Amino acid sequence: MDTIVTRYLATWNATDPAVRDELLAAHWTQDCVYVDPLADVAGRPAVGATIAAVQGQFPGFVFSQVGEVDTHHGQARFQWGLGPAGEEPVVIGFDVVVTDDDQRIRDVRGFLDRVPG
Amino acid sequence: MDTIVTRYLATWNATDPAVRDELLAAHWTQDCVYVDPLADVAGRPAVGATIAAVQGQFPGFVFSQVGEVDTHHGQARFQWGLGPAGEEPVVIGFDVVVTDDDQRIRDVRGFLDRVPG
Repeated sequence: MDTIVTRYLATWNATDPAVRDELLAAHWTQDCVYVDPLADVAGRPAVGATIAAVQGQFPGFVFSQVGEVDTHHGQARFQWGLGPAGEEPVVIGFDVVVTDDDQRIRDVRGFLDRVPG
Repeated sequence: MDTIVTRYLATWNATDPAVRDELLAAHWTQDCVYVDPLADVAGRPAVGATIAAVQGQFPGFVFSQVGEVDTHHGQARFQWGLGPAGEEPVVIGFDVVVTDDDQRIRDVRGFLDRVPG
């Protein structure tokens, strides 16, 4: 499941729309659901648009894994950080990602642990 | 959503099968999914059987909420404890519970934070 988190964060870090769409097509299900405090969307195009909007809000920032991934039965919980590359994250979030039998992301339940004050 | 967690833990604490079935029928969807490190089940009867099995494993123990509930868009994350009533929990777990539009529990993604050594 570390691979799933790697793929998940790679999608969030893909600022080239073509690359992002490829990652969505390869690693997310068609009917994928993504819900965090600021978004409640379904389907690859909507997830891609959500990611693009966040990237636009934080230009140059990157997503990285924070701490360990805890996983079982195709579901993983982990923290991620968003900030300038190599620096302390400005935002820290927490997600539970659920995959289907083909290891594709089908459901993401996100929460925020640290937001800019 | 505090209500959802209250209903959720009430179901886990219902040792009378009739009461447990009533709570499942009232507050869980028919196709509810429950996945934790030791269980991966779907439907009220299977969830009820899972709860009964855990109760049988820890007779006299009760589930209680630990800390605050963080909720948005019909999904909640929170910790729970399992132990003798009024005492320090022996087991601490963490769940993300997702509800449908009628506030019924339809998806539970569980993890364990503390297990007996």
